[in-house]
Amino acid sequence: MTLVDKCKKLCKASEILATMDTKLKNEALYQVGLSLKEYKAFILEENKKDVEKAKKDNMKESLIDRLCLSEERIDDMIEGIHNIIELKDPVWKSNELWTLENGLTLSKMTVPLGVIGIIYESRPNVTVDAFSLALKSGNCILLRGSSSSINSNNALVYAIKEGLKKSPVSENVIEFIDDIDRSVVKEMLTLNEYIDVIIPRGGKDLIQFVVKNATVPTIETGVGNCHIFVDETADIKKSIDIIENAKVQRPGVCNACETVLVHKKIANLFLPKLYDRLIERVEIRGCQETKKIIPVNSAIEEDWYKEYLDYILAVKVVENVDDAIFHIRKYGTKHSEAILTESLTNANKFLRQVDAAAVYVNASTRFTDGGQFGFGAEMGISTQKIHARGPMGLNELVTVKYTIIGNGQIRE
Amino acid sequence: MTLVDKCKKLCKASEILATMDTKLKNEALYQVGLSLKEYKAFILEENKKDVEKAKKDNMKESLIDRLCLSEERIDDMIEGIHNIIELKDPVWKSNELWTLENGLTLSKMTVPLGVIGIIYESRPNVTVDAFSLALKSGNCILLRGSSSSINSNNALVYAIKEGLKKSPVSENVIEFIDDIDRSVVKEMLTLNEYIDVIIPRGGKDLIQFVVKNATVPTIETGVGNCHIFVDETADIKKSIDIIENAKVQRPGVCNACETVLVHKKIANLFLPKLYDRLIERVEIRGCQETKKIIPVNSAIEEDWYKEYLDYILAVKVVENVDDAIFHIRKYGTKHSEAILTESLTNANKFLRQVDAAAVYVNASTRFTDGGQFGFGAEMGISTQKIHARGPMGLNELVTVKYTIIGNGQIRE
Repeated sequence: MTLVDKCKKLCKASEILATMDTKLKNEALYQVGLSLKEYKAFILEENKKDVEKAKKDNMKESLIDRLCLSEERIDDMIEGIHNIIELKDPVWKSNELWTLENGLTLSKMTVPLGVIGIIYESRPNVTVDAFSLALKSGNCILLRGSSSSINSNNALVYAIKEGLKKSPVSENVIEFIDDIDRSVVKEMLTLNEYIDVIIPRGGKDLIQFVVKNATVPTIETGVGNCHIFVDETADIKKSIDIIENAKVQRPGVCNACETVLVHKKIANLFLPKLYDRLIERVEIRGCQETKKIIPVNSAIEEDWYKEYLDYILAVKVVENVDDAIFHIRKYGTKHSEAILTESLTNANKFLRQVDAAAVYVNASTRFTDGGQFGFGAEMGISTQKIHARGPMGLNELVTVKYTIIGNGQIRE
Repeated sequence: MTLVDKCKKLCKASEILATMDTKLKNEALYQVGLSLKEYKAFILEENKKDVEKAKKDNMKESLIDRLCLSEERIDDMIEGIHNIIELKDPVWKSNELWTLENGLTLSKMTVPLGVIGIIYESRPNVTVDAFSLALKSGNCILLRGSSSSINSNNALVYAIKEGLKKSPVSENVIEFIDDIDRSVVKEMLTLNEYIDVIIPRGGKDLIQFVVKNATVPTIETGVGNCHIFVDETADIKKSIDIIENAKVQRPGVCNACETVLVHKKIANLFLPKLYDRLIERVEIRGCQETKKIIPVNSAIEEDWYKEYLDYILAVKVVENVDDAIFHIRKYGTKHSEAILTESLTNANKFLRQVDAAAVYVNASTRFTDGGQFGFGAEMGISTQKIHARGPMGLNELVTVKYTIIGNGQIRE
């Protein structure tokens, strides 16, 4: 089946799915959960092929771990589906209904986007998460995983389709691209007639490739060079805990902290304590001022731009909150930024003036996540400004339709 | 000044403008209004140069009319500014504030997009409208008008900047590209570092050029192949009035009706009356069934796809509401679609199943417009699904920022 054929099937299925009652969509999700359970052995077998190939190709250990499925990880996927069943259907809701002077009544209603394309790397659980979120929000989904997880993804999509066959929802609401040639991605990126939005999930290169080549509207996700600014009035104990959490709890993710900015008036007191807490696990790279206080490596200009995704932290002493905001504007990626302070004025200034998806006062940047925010699940974290910004849950997977009810109105 | 230099100035100005109080922005708008009044003679003189060139180039009469400014048209622009002063500031508002179990308090706040790029054709009033909407919503604006209105636009931007100089807002919040080479547009479309969103306003070719070449996120506007379906139970008198209004009140716009679909059971009664009402002003192109009832030209397959923007109407007899929905899915552009019916079942079916920015029951499609919807003004009509759909007013010119207030929370 060609890519366009798959897209045509999705569009056709979308016409029915878009207005389907919640209980029918939930029933389909439930059946998919049962099917994943039923096909567990098959999925694990197929996953083993991918893992063996990855080992043969000398893939990094951490990436192999992301790729590897287990009974428990499949159970987690099923639990994820059950969580999504519990979430409120985001479709055909409105907070805006008004009547014009001429008697026309308008509503701004939420409706599904239509067909969502996802291009993702490695982790096979994205296959199930993305599908479930799409289905619940009335959207069909076209998936393109990485070649390294092709067998796992094929097996998962097979199980999903088998589940859908026993449900009121057509198995055609999901299609998977198993052609590993990159040219097929390029084709996908220009199928404006069939695909309403494309969301790339993965590393910088993938996202840049998509942004550069897509004519279909896209939602950029991912890159986070996140800062924590320790203000003059910060609570030192809490600040050390927050920075430790934001740096080492899981350094390989986009909401981990990469640079700490420290107010010069607190630097002498604060930096030695930060050093003691982190130095065994984290390489610290400091500015000249930092190096006068703690014995660390030098940060060079490049370090301020870096998303390390590793046990490395850049540290810079700044003049004040304005200087911190200036640094973040210059080097940040508008993902997640935090100020640690007891000053209401500085907290408000930072909240207003820092331009990012999530801005924190006295908390770890690691909370930028659909699950943590209470959305139940997420399709990724948008780092662009249009359509959605920050974690994308079900409410970000819809668009709107104005309905206008009249009784013969014409325009003067 | 190079394009990148202009963009840098806009970004710098945006840092201040983004958090400016409403009263200061309104004062700036007021000063711009005064300045347009002051420079009226100069603007008209510059506009004359464009009009004379257009005449020499044998531009179509209707386009020359769009290009032409008068004292009255400048007064209308000033009135438009005063209307925007009266509108509510869309920035730093929230309908969503919640607290997590761990005590973190989250708000989803509206914030300006940053720098908006507008690429537009002909009508010089867009210069003033787009600037005013951008300023009120805290956004800087980069304008690229057509070469045919270059003198008019330059004069308008000059007057705007002179007004801003007397106000609390920097004159650098607006920049105009007066390089008429198309390569500069191509450059603009890829300046992701400086421009947050690009909105093309104009014909199909311009919009396609932008979609094809942009890496900056874009919002497509414009093309509308709008349908009106006359159901079996439609009120005939009202239906004739609505179709006449949607076709002839202003045929050159995107929300004008291009095709009428008529239920076969009402066709014999309805079509002769429609014919009588329209035939002196409108060329009707009918399907085979239509031609059996009224003496009109033949519609060919191509006609169903056409956005005539002219005194031409395609007419097709259909089996029922499902057949009408099927036709609209196949040929429509998802802009504005209407059903004329007294059947609640069919009205609801049409509202749910037709996928378009605006779906009407018993009213003219001509109402799809920010002014008509009560938004006060509009930046264009989005025909894509992400970010905004339908008329874009001030509320569509913002993005969001999550603010998260804690007292030391870390992620488990």
